[in-house]
Amino acid sequence: MAGTPTTDKPATHDFVEEVQIEGHIIDSLILPKILDLITAGGGTLRIKKMTVGQARTDPSFALVDVMATSAGQLSEIIAQIADHGAVPTAQQDCQLVAADMPGAFPEGFYSSTNQRTEVRIGGRWIEVADQEMDCGVAIDTHAMSARCVAMSDVIAGTNFVVGHAGVRVFPLETSAERQGFEFMGSSVSTEKPKGVAIRQIAYELFKNRKSGGKTLLVGGPAIVHTGSGEHVCRLLRAGYIDRLFAGNALATHDIEQSLFGTSLGVHLERGDLAEAGHEHHLRAINRIRRAGGIARAVENGLLTSGIMYECIRNHVDFLLAGSIRDDGPLPEVITDVLEAQRQMREQIRDVSFCLMIATTLHSIAVGNLLPAWVKVVCVDINPSTVIKLGDRGSFQTVGLVTDVEPFLRAVVQELDALERAA
Amino acid sequence: MAGTPTTDKPATHDFVEEVQIEGHIIDSLILPKILDLITAGGGTLRIKKMTVGQARTDPSFALVDVMATSAGQLSEIIAQIADHGAVPTAQQDCQLVAADMPGAFPEGFYSSTNQRTEVRIGGRWIEVADQEMDCGVAIDTHAMSARCVAMSDVIAGTNFVVGHAGVRVFPLETSAERQGFEFMGSSVSTEKPKGVAIRQIAYELFKNRKSGGKTLLVGGPAIVHTGSGEHVCRLLRAGYIDRLFAGNALATHDIEQSLFGTSLGVHLERGDLAEAGHEHHLRAINRIRRAGGIARAVENGLLTSGIMYECIRNHVDFLLAGSIRDDGPLPEVITDVLEAQRQMREQIRDVSFCLMIATTLHSIAVGNLLPAWVKVVCVDINPSTVIKLGDRGSFQTVGLVTDVEPFLRAVVQELDALERAA
Amino acid sequence: MAGTPTTDKPATHDFVEEVQIEGHIIDSLILPKILDLITAGGGTLRIKKMTVGQARTDPSFALVDVMATSAGQLSEIIAQIADHGAVPTAQQDCQLVAADMPGAFPEGFYSSTNQRTEVRIGGRWIEVADQEMDCGVAIDTHAMSARCVAMSDVIAGTNFVVGHAGVRVFPLETSAERQGFEFMGSSVSTEKPKGVAIRQIAYELFKNRKSGGKTLLVGGPAIVHTGSGEHVCRLLRAGYIDRLFAGNALATHDIEQSLFGTSLGVHLERGDLAEAGHEHHLRAINRIRRAGGIARAVENGLLTSGIMYECIRNHVDFLLAGSIRDDGPLPEVITDVLEAQRQMREQIRDVSFCLMIATTLHSIAVGNLLPAWVKVVCVDINPSTVIKLGDRGSFQTVGLVTDVEPFLRAVVQELDALERAA
Amino acid sequence: MAGTPTTDKPATHDFVEEVQIEGHIIDSLILPKILDLITAGGGTLRIKKMTVGQARTDPSFALVDVMATSAGQLSEIIAQIADHGAVPTAQQDCQLVAADMPGAFPEGFYSSTNQRTEVRIGGRWIEVADQEMDCGVAIDTHAMSARCVAMSDVIAGTNFVVGHAGVRVFPLETSAERQGFEFMGSSVSTEKPKGVAIRQIAYELFKNRKSGGKTLLVGGPAIVHTGSGEHVCRLLRAGYIDRLFAGNALATHDIEQSLFGTSLGVHLERGDLAEAGHEHHLRAINRIRRAGGIARAVENGLLTSGIMYECIRNHVDFLLAGSIRDDGPLPEVITDVLEAQRQMREQIRDVSFCLMIATTLHSIAVGNLLPAWVKVVCVDINPSTVIKLGDRGSFQTVGLVTDVEPFLRAVVQELDALERAA
Repeated sequence: MAGTPTTDKPATHDFVEEVQIEGHIIDSLILPKILDLITAGGGTLRIKKMTVGQARTDPSFALVDVMATSAGQLSEIIAQIADHGAVPTAQQDCQLVAADMPGAFPEGFYSSTNQRTEVRIGGRWIEVADQEMDCGVAIDTHAMSARCVAMSDVIAGTNFVVGHAGVRVFPLETSAERQGFEFMGSSVSTEKPKGVAIRQIAYELFKNRKSGGKTLLVGGPAIVHTGSGEHVCRLLRAGYIDRLFAGNALATHDIEQSLFGTSLGVHLERGDLAEAGHEHHLRAINRIRRAGGIARAVENGLLTSGIMYECIRNHVDFLLAGSIRDDGPLPEVITDVLEAQRQMREQIRDVSFCLMIATTLHSIAVGNLLPAWVKVVCVDINPSTVIKLGDRGSFQTVGLVTDVEPFLRAVVQELDALERAA
Repeated sequence: MAGTPTTDKPATHDFVEEVQIEGHIIDSLILPKILDLITAGGGTLRIKKMTVGQARTDPSFALVDVMATSAGQLSEIIAQIADHGAVPTAQQDCQLVAADMPGAFPEGFYSSTNQRTEVRIGGRWIEVADQEMDCGVAIDTHAMSARCVAMSDVIAGTNFVVGHAGVRVFPLETSAERQGFEFMGSSVSTEKPKGVAIRQIAYELFKNRKSGGKTLLVGGPAIVHTGSGEHVCRLLRAGYIDRLFAGNALATHDIEQSLFGTSLGVHLERGDLAEAGHEHHLRAINRIRRAGGIARAVENGLLTSGIMYECIRNHVDFLLAGSIRDDGPLPEVITDVLEAQRQMREQIRDVSFCLMIATTLHSIAVGNLLPAWVKVVCVDINPSTVIKLGDRGSFQTVGLVTDVEPFLRAVVQELDALERAA
Repeated sequence: MAGTPTTDKPATHDFVEEVQIEGHIIDSLILPKILDLITAGGGTLRIKKMTVGQARTDPSFALVDVMATSAGQLSEIIAQIADHGAVPTAQQDCQLVAADMPGAFPEGFYSSTNQRTEVRIGGRWIEVADQEMDCGVAIDTHAMSARCVAMSDVIAGTNFVVGHAGVRVFPLETSAERQGFEFMGSSVSTEKPKGVAIRQIAYELFKNRKSGGKTLLVGGPAIVHTGSGEHVCRLLRAGYIDRLFAGNALATHDIEQSLFGTSLGVHLERGDLAEAGHEHHLRAINRIRRAGGIARAVENGLLTSGIMYECIRNHVDFLLAGSIRDDGPLPEVITDVLEAQRQMREQIRDVSFCLMIATTLHSIAVGNLLPAWVKVVCVDINPSTVIKLGDRGSFQTVGLVTDVEPFLRAVVQELDALERAA
Repeated sequence: MAGTPTTDKPATHDFVEEVQIEGHIIDSLILPKILDLITAGGGTLRIKKMTVGQARTDPSFALVDVMATSAGQLSEIIAQIADHGAVPTAQQDCQLVAADMPGAFPEGFYSSTNQRTEVRIGGRWIEVADQEMDCGVAIDTHAMSARCVAMSDVIAGTNFVVGHAGVRVFPLETSAERQGFEFMGSSVSTEKPKGVAIRQIAYELFKNRKSGGKTLLVGGPAIVHTGSGEHVCRLLRAGYIDRLFAGNALATHDIEQSLFGTSLGVHLERGDLAEAGHEHHLRAINRIRRAGGIARAVENGLLTSGIMYECIRNHVDFLLAGSIRDDGPLPEVITDVLEAQRQMREQIRDVSFCLMIATTLHSIAVGNLLPAWVKVVCVDINPSTVIKLGDRGSFQTVGLVTDVEPFLRAVVQELDALERAA
C-alpha cells in the first residue's frame, strides 16, 4: 500500500533504449503488458510514435523509449519486455558464447520462451527450431541454424546465445488465438455451460484427424478409475489419437481392468470393492513383467482389451514415464526421467492438438515442452490442476473443470454425430 | 499425544446405570460407537451380557453397566449414548415441563435427533411425529401424542420433554441402510466410477414414481448456468419430481434463459457473453414483477419455457426461499426465512427421495429438516458441499462429486432406457 | 472454433455513433476491453483520433466511431461500452420515465453498475448517490439529484432513467487502484507468499482507524470453529472494526463458545468433541432467547466474553442477517432478507475498507451492495469463494486463499508491531 | 438398490474354514470390518465363540466359521480377512515358491500390507523385516528370516511366500493408535480448530528429538513459494529434522531464493514479480551445475543460506528424487525413479515421525514405503492431497488442511515455547 514508508529519492533515468512493438498490440493486451513491465521494473517510458490500427483487424505500431537508472536495470527491463515482442530498434546480431562444459549453459545464457522466436546472425533473422521454454538457443553458424537445447543436453563447445540482443519474440496475440478457441473466459469456473466447449473439442479432434494433424492424449489413471477407458478405446480405434503419454498408473489400472475387471480394486461394473482387490494392480504388473512387456502380452493373447491393447493394435505410439510412486513398474515404463523427457520431446514435434486429462504431473511436464501455438485443452475435476497449468505460462491452454467420464462420453457422442453428418 | 503431562489420579466410578442395546449393533458399528462415547466421556463400562447374532442377519443384544465419577457425568454420558440407541433398563416415563414463554424451550429440554424416536408416557412408548433434528419434543398427554417442534414455534404452556429419561432412539443401522444404497464408500472421492451411481439414482427416481413416493429436488442456479435446465424440464414433464425447493437465483436465471436465451448473461447455445447480458437477469425479474408473478406470467403467455414454466404446467409445487444475496426478488420468493422454513417443513412430510444439486445453502437447510430415513443424494462438483453436509449429521446422504450437466444428462438417458424397458 | 460452419453474409454497418474515452485507457486495459466489446457485439469500429499519454501517468484520449447493422444492435453496443466509460459525444439529457407501479422499474430502465456514475439533467452532469450495482437510478428533477434505488424499494410515480443516453460511468482504472493494493496478481493462487499481503492488510486496518475511515468485517462461523474468535475480539477492543455483518451461525457459535467452551460441539482448547456437544449451540440460542436477546444477556451478566460481547461492550454495530439454514434464531437476527438488505445498505454508506472472512453468502451479499471504490479483502481457505466473488463483478476485491486462524493471528501480530512502532 | 432385478438362487455354502480374531476387535472396528468382508465376498459366517473384554482395555476373542460356495471363493475371503488379522486355526507353514526370473514374483505370490506381519516357517512364527505394502515376502529358510522385497528387486531363485496360509497380520488397533494421535476425527475438514493439532505436532517433534527418534520431512516447493523456507531452516538448525525428501523443485526454488531473492520469480519480501524473474530458477540450476553440485556450491561459498545450505551445514541427509517436470535438474537429483525408491527405502528404516508438507507426489511415494506404525502428519491447503493419501491405505496419516506458511510459523513458535519451558 501507498503508505508503507519508503524514502523515494527521485532517480535519474539516464539509460535509454528505443524499442518497437508491432501487431495487435492494443486489443491483445500486449502493449499494456509491456508498459506495465517497464514501470514495474523501475523504469520510465516515453511513447515516441504510435499508429493505431483503424479497424480491429489492422495491426498497430508503437515506438517507445525505455529509460532506466542503470545499465543493469535497463538490460533487465529489455530482457523482460523482449519476451513479449518488444524489439530494440538498434539491431545487432545475437551474441554467442561456447559452452565450456557439458550439461550447463554459459553464464548469461538467453533463456527461451515457448513463443515463436528468431535470432539475428550475420545480419539475417533465423527462426529457432524445436521451440520450447526454459531452454538455451544453440547456434550452428555454418548451417545458419538455431534450435532450443535443454540444459542437460548441452554438449561442450556448442555456441549458445547470451543476453537479449539479436533475439526477437513473436508473442501469440490473444485475440487472434481466440478466434479458434474462444469458448472460455475464466477457464476455472465450474458454473459455465460445458456443452459448447465439448462440441468444439470434438470438432477439433474431428478436424485434426481429417487434416492429418497429430493429436496427443496425456492422461492420468482417473480415466480408468472413473470407467472412461472404453471411451478412450473408442477414440483410439477411430484414429482420433496419435500419441498417448501417461504413467505407470494409467497403464497398470487399464491392464488390471482388462485382467481382473477392477480398477484399484473397484469393480467398474458394480461400483463396489472386489475382495483382495487392492492386490489386483500388483498382480497385473507382475503378469506383464512375466510376459516380457505389454506388447508381448498382446501378442501372446494375455491382454485382449483396454487402452494399452488398443494402442498396440492400432499402432498408436505410447510413452509411459516413470515416477517415484510407481509400483512395479511395467516393463515399458521409462524409469529415467531425463530419458523420458527426451523421448517426449521427440514425439511432440508434429503434435497440433493436445488433450490433457486428469493428471497434474504429466500435464505440466508436457506443458513445459510444447510450443505456445499448439492448442491444448486441460480437463480436470480439480480446479487446482487447471490453475497451476495457467500459472506456469502455458497460456495457450484452455481449462475445463469437469468430470472425466461424462466429459469423454459426451465427446464420443459428438464425434458419432459428426461422423454421421460427414 | 501420550506425552502431554497430565496427573491422572484414578477417579472412583461410583455412579452406575445399566443400559441395553439391541439390533445389528456389531456390524453396523453402533456398539463400538457407544463404547467409544462412554470412555471418551470419562466413564468406564462393564459388559454384563452379550448375545451375538449367529448369522450376519441375526440381531445382537448387549447389556452394559455405564459407570461415571459423578451424577452429572453419568447423565451426560447417558444422554450422549441415548442418541445411538442405548436405553436405560430402569424404565421411567419422560419428564415434562411446560414452556414458560413463547419461542423458547424450558431449560434442560430434550434436543431431538433426526432418527426415529419414541417417548414413554404413562408407561407406554409413543412414536414422535414430524421427526426433525434440533427440535424440542412437545407432548399432548390427553391425546397421548408427541411431535417435534422448532424453537421459534414454541407456544407458551405446551409441555416439552426435558432430560433423556423415557426417550429411546432407533438409529438407522448402517448395513441395513446400505442394502438400498450401497454405491459409495468414501463419498467425496472424485476418482470412483460414476456410472453405477448414476444408474442407481435413475432407478430410484423410476421406482419412486411408480410406487407413488414423492421426490424432492433441491437445486441451485448452476443447473441453469451449466445448461442443464432442459434435463430438469424433462424430469418435470415425466413426473419424476414432485416438489422443487430453490432460491431466487435458480428461478431468475431459468426465466432469464427463457426470456433472453442467456444465464447470468452467458449464451447457453454459444457459450459466450451476450452484450449487456449482465442486466438480463434484472430485466427478467422486473418483467415478472410487473406481470404479478411467475404463475401469472405463464398464464399471460409471457413465460413459455423453462423449469418454472414446467412446474406450473405440470402442477409441481415449488418453494422459493429468499436469501440476502437476492436481486429483486421474484414475487413468489418467501423473503422471511422462518416462514420459508415452516413451509418447507410442511412440504417434506411425505418426501421419500431427495436429490440435492449444486446448492450448499438449500441443501443444508433441507438436510436439517429431513428425518434420517429419507434417502438423499447430494451432487456437487465442489467436494466441500458434500463434506459439509456429511459433517452436520445428515448421514443418510450419499454424496457424488461430479459435474451437474453431464450428471443430469446421464440420468435422463438412463430413465429413457428404463422407460423403454418397462 | 473457426470451422463451425456459418454463412457470414457481410452485413452493412450503417448505424454509427461517435464515442469518446478518456483516462488511463491503455494501461488500465479499458480501451482494449471496449474495442473487444464492440466487435463481440457484432459491430465494427474506426479510431478517429487517439492521443496516447507520453508518460505512464499521463491520461490518454480516444475518439471512436462505433458502427452497427441495426439501430437495436448499435444501442446494445453503446449500452455495453457505456459501463466501461465510453460516452457518446452527441450529448443529451438522460431520459426519464415514471414508475407505474411499486416494486418494479419501468421497462427499459437503466441498470446501474457499482462504478462512479453521472447523469445529465437539464444540461448538467449530476453525480449519482448511493452507488450500487443492479439498481435503477431515481431522479428528483426539482432537487437536481440522482440516487440508486433497489427494485423492491421502487415507489410508484418516481422518475427513473431509461436507456443509456445521458449517463456516463467512470470506471476504476486498474493501475491506479493497484497503487494501493497491488499485492496479488492471480488472487486465487495458494502458492504465493502471504506475508506481504498480511502486512499490507494490517497496515490498511491501522491506517483506516487512524484516519477515521470505517472498517466492516463480514464473517462466517469458521472464525469461531477455527479458534479465531479471540483474534477478532482483540480487533474489536482496539477499535479496528466499526461494523460486523454476520449470520445467526457466527453469533450462535461465538455464544456457544462463551457459555460451553465448544464450537459446534468441538472443544476449542482440546480439539475433541464434547459429550452431547452437538446440542450446545441449540441450548445457547435457547438461553439467549429466554434472556430476551444478546444485548440483554450481556447486561444480565449471562454473556461475558466473545465476539458478540465485545461488539456490545465496545459499541460496534452488528447486523445479523437470517438464512434458511438457521436454528433458532437468536432474537437479534433479521429474518426478512429484504429488511436485512435495507439495513446493510444503510450501514455501508461510510465504509472505506471491508474484510470478508470465511463466508460465501454474506460476502457476495455485501459485494453486491458496495461501490467499486471500497477496498475489499476476501479471505477463505476454499478458492471457490474467492473465484465466485470475482466472477460477479466485485473487481475491487483482493482474494487471499489461506487458513482463517493463522491469518488473523498474523494480522494481530502485525498490528501489535505497528502499534509499538507508532 | 434393492430393486435391481437379480435371480438369487440360494447357493450352498459347503466350503468352511475356522478363523480366530483377537485383540481390541470390537471397539477398534476390526471385527465388524471382518464380518463385513465375509458377507461382501459372498460368504456366510457363524460365530462359534465370543469372549468380550469386560473393561474397555481388555482384549476380546472370537472364533468364526467362514463358509463359501467354492474353494476359490473361500480362499479369496480368507486372503481378504487375513489382512485384518483373522488367522485360520488350522495352522500350517507358509508355502514357498522360488522366483523363476528376476524382477517378477512367482504367480500367486503373497502381497504384503504395511502392517506388522509374521510368517510360519518350520512351525515357528517369524517377524517379517522391512515391512512395506505391495511387496513380496522373501524367505531365507537357513537363516529363518523373512523380509519384504519390491518387485523390481526380485532375484531369481529367491523363495517367496505364495497364498495366505502361514501368514498372520497384526493390524494397528485404531483406538490404541489414537491415544497418541487423537486430534482429528474427520481429517479433511477445514473448519476445525488447528491450534491443538499444531501444539501436538510441535510436541511430537520435540519429544522425537529428545528420545533420539528420527524425523523425516517430505516437502514440496510451496514451502519456498509461501515464504516458509526460514521456518524449515530454523527446524534444521535446531536438529528437529533428520532427513529431507524432496524433488528438484524445492531445492531449485530454495537456491533461487538464496541467489536471487525470488521464488518462481516472485520476490518473497515484496510479493511482486521480479523482472525476468521466471528465468531465475533456471539460472540457479545452471550455476549449481557449473559448480558441480549443491555440496560443492556450499563449500565454494556460492550458496550461503536456505534449506539446502542448512542441510549440508547441519549434516542432515537429503534425497532429491527426479520427476518428468524437472528443469535442469540439479546434479544431486536422482533421475532414475527406481534408484530413488531404493535410496528412500534405505533412509526410512529408522524414521519414527514423518511430516509431509505440500507435495502430493512425494507424500504418496513415501506413504507407500512406510510401515503403518510410523506416525505421519500430512499438511496441505488442498484437501484432495489429504484425501488421496487416506484413500491409498496410509491410515496412520493425520491430515491437516491448512496454509503452509502460517502452519510452520506456528510450529516454530510452539517449539520456542517448549524449549524455554524445558
